[in-house]
Amino acid sequence: MFSALPCRKPISALHHHIPYALSQRAGFGAEKGRVMALKMNAEELMTFLEEVFPRVKGEFTLMELGPDSLRLRLNVNESHLRPGGTVSGPAMFALADCAFYVLLLARVGRQALAVTTGCSIDFMRKPRPAPLFAQARMLKLGQVLAVGDVLLFSGTDSRPVARASLTYSIPPERKTGIKHHGD
Amino acid sequence: MFSALPCRKPISALHHHIPYALSQRAGFGAEKGRVMALKMNAEELMTFLEEVFPRVKGEFTLMELGPDSLRLRLNVNESHLRPGGTVSGPAMFALADCAFYVLLLARVGRQALAVTTGCSIDFMRKPRPAPLFAQARMLKLGQVLAVGDVLLFSGTDSRPVARASLTYSIPPERKTGIKHHGD
Amino acid sequence: MFSALPCRKPISALHHHIPYALSQRAGFGAEKGRVMALKMNAEELMTFLEEVFPRVKGEFTLMELGPDSLRLRLNVNESHLRPGGTVSGPAMFALADCAFYVLLLARVGRQALAVTTGCSIDFMRKPRPAPLFAQARMLKLGQVLAVGDVLLFSGTDSRPVARASLTYSIPPERKTGIKHHGD
Amino acid sequence: MFSALPCRKPISALHHHIPYALSQRAGFGAEKGRVMALKMNAEELMTFLEEVFPRVKGEFTLMELGPDSLRLRLNVNESHLRPGGTVSGPAMFALADCAFYVLLLARVGRQALAVTTGCSIDFMRKPRPAPLFAQARMLKLGQVLAVGDVLLFSGTDSRPVARASLTYSIPPERKTGIKHHGD
Repeated sequence: MFSALPCRKPISALHHHIPYALSQRAGFGAEKGRVMALKMNAEELMTFLEEVFPRVKGEFTLMELGPDSLRLRLNVNESHLRPGGTVSGPAMFALADCAFYVLLLARVGRQALAVTTGCSIDFMRKPRPAPLFAQARMLKLGQVLAVGDVLLFSGTDSRPVARASLTYSIPPERKTGIKHHGD
Repeated sequence: MFSALPCRKPISALHHHIPYALSQRAGFGAEKGRVMALKMNAEELMTFLEEVFPRVKGEFTLMELGPDSLRLRLNVNESHLRPGGTVSGPAMFALADCAFYVLLLARVGRQALAVTTGCSIDFMRKPRPAPLFAQARMLKLGQVLAVGDVLLFSGTDSRPVARASLTYSIPPERKTGIKHHGD
Repeated sequence: MFSALPCRKPISALHHHIPYALSQRAGFGAEKGRVMALKMNAEELMTFLEEVFPRVKGEFTLMELGPDSLRLRLNVNESHLRPGGTVSGPAMFALADCAFYVLLLARVGRQALAVTTGCSIDFMRKPRPAPLFAQARMLKLGQVLAVGDVLLFSGTDSRPVARASLTYSIPPERKTGIKHHGD
Repeated sequence: MFSALPCRKPISALHHHIPYALSQRAGFGAEKGRVMALKMNAEELMTFLEEVFPRVKGEFTLMELGPDSLRLRLNVNESHLRPGGTVSGPAMFALADCAFYVLLLARVGRQALAVTTGCSIDFMRKPRPAPLFAQARMLKLGQVLAVGDVLLFSGTDSRPVARASLTYSIPPERKTGIKHHGD
């Protein structure tokens, strides 16, 4: 499934600054027949992410970006591991959250400072000390709430190690400053 | 997506009492390359369900059954509606729970009295007073826990109205009586 | 804990139409030092609930109402039971959801048609065929989202049979019609 | 509520190696009238935690330990913050998870290598760059599953910044090695 595994090169931005026709497979977030534009392409997204969160620089690689789905890789290193050589729960949580955040940014643009309001995560298998992949999809993009889910895969194993569902609150575009969790 | 909508006929049992090769699309619960047998076919599942829960007789129709996924229809009637003509939250919860329960039964067989230990559900859109469809998939089938998720669709709309993730506790096969939530 | 168990009489409305000082024990939803008024008292709440959901008439009894917490009893009958004589999952979900909904109504008033956007529930013990009690508390009451949690108790047992956390979306007051899950 | 805030000194172990009578306030996990012994005291817990997770050395301080509840402080530093000076989601997740893990260890002892199987978390308010406190309680301690919840508080504010519910899988005592999420 992840044949591009050893490749660190981000997907070409060229694929992404043109409007997308509704994906037949995963187009849940979309009105039927509507054409959906991404407001940020892959390069813009990764640049923004590393500007806003300098700590994660080099940790994430965007592998694939569509109007309603995204694949993000966590380049697992020592700091993500816990005893036994498995990836820690907080690192898995952070990957799932980040993947959905980037997908949401791609759709609503950087001016909207969305915040996580809820996450439900199930840990199903022990990830090996290998790259971890998040496959995120947008299930609902409303005016004030976005809902999606994420499967996490370890290395080339096709069985998910974890699943997460996430809810984000989307503040009005004009609002400045960081949104305070739905206040 | 739901072209078979007006059809109440359960899918043919013939499709289901032979072993399944791993589905390429959704085979998350499976060891790679392993062949998976369903322990109950569609007819046996619906018969068992109506024996154990006589109250739901006629409410559910099994539309599709695979080794790791299932589609179940709730034949929505007055008792499922709330004011405004939308399907109630408890009815959606019950459909999601039932869908994953039937999928689990198909895999572990009727002797194992599995119980729901947890459910996380997001309500995303208002369902119309139309049949409601649950698309369930098995993400992990372990010795003691099973984890899966479910998307709910209203009528022929391709946008999900709700998503749910469910965890079941699977008691040892020999145990008799109803399992008490992991005691 | 539930010494008032056999008593069906709703708590006196007199206790509730005066402003409340911040409860020291459970005053999570409140600004420190602020005095909080309930917008509906116990009688108004139950009347409204039975108007809006005529099906539940007689099912619920409001046992206790405070600014940030509430105790609601489900008068369990045959329709709530599943085989084995235990209360069904959907009935427990409905009780938890209803308890938090009533608490939210008490705070924001009937004009605001709040809807459940998410629920996470853990089933921990098997309830006996006895009255079921929901102890709900408000953890956050924001402009657009409310968050709370609920413990469910069976009869006089002090160990909870289930716990649920709930998120509600609160539409602007002027809006008419039923809110469509955050659209 | 957290008057002991600046104090880094762990609570005295003396309070904890004697059996506890059932707490009247929070004794949810307990059989009525049963006396419950903690298998590890505060010192043993923190020593074990820092042995197993050397990375967290100095991050956590155990403030209070009872048979069914615990208060743990995260000594927030730069590494826990995100832009805007707020504590990051993964840091809050890690604190909630750790708090319930320590409470579970206190009850089942160090030989049982329990693992998180699920977590549902709601982020309600933005924590300030101040110590973060987790108030955890045990709701169910079964043979194979433990369920609890956690409220997170920032500094001296009595309003919770987040709530989490957690499920742990408890492997049989004799089993060696790290449990693989319910396999």
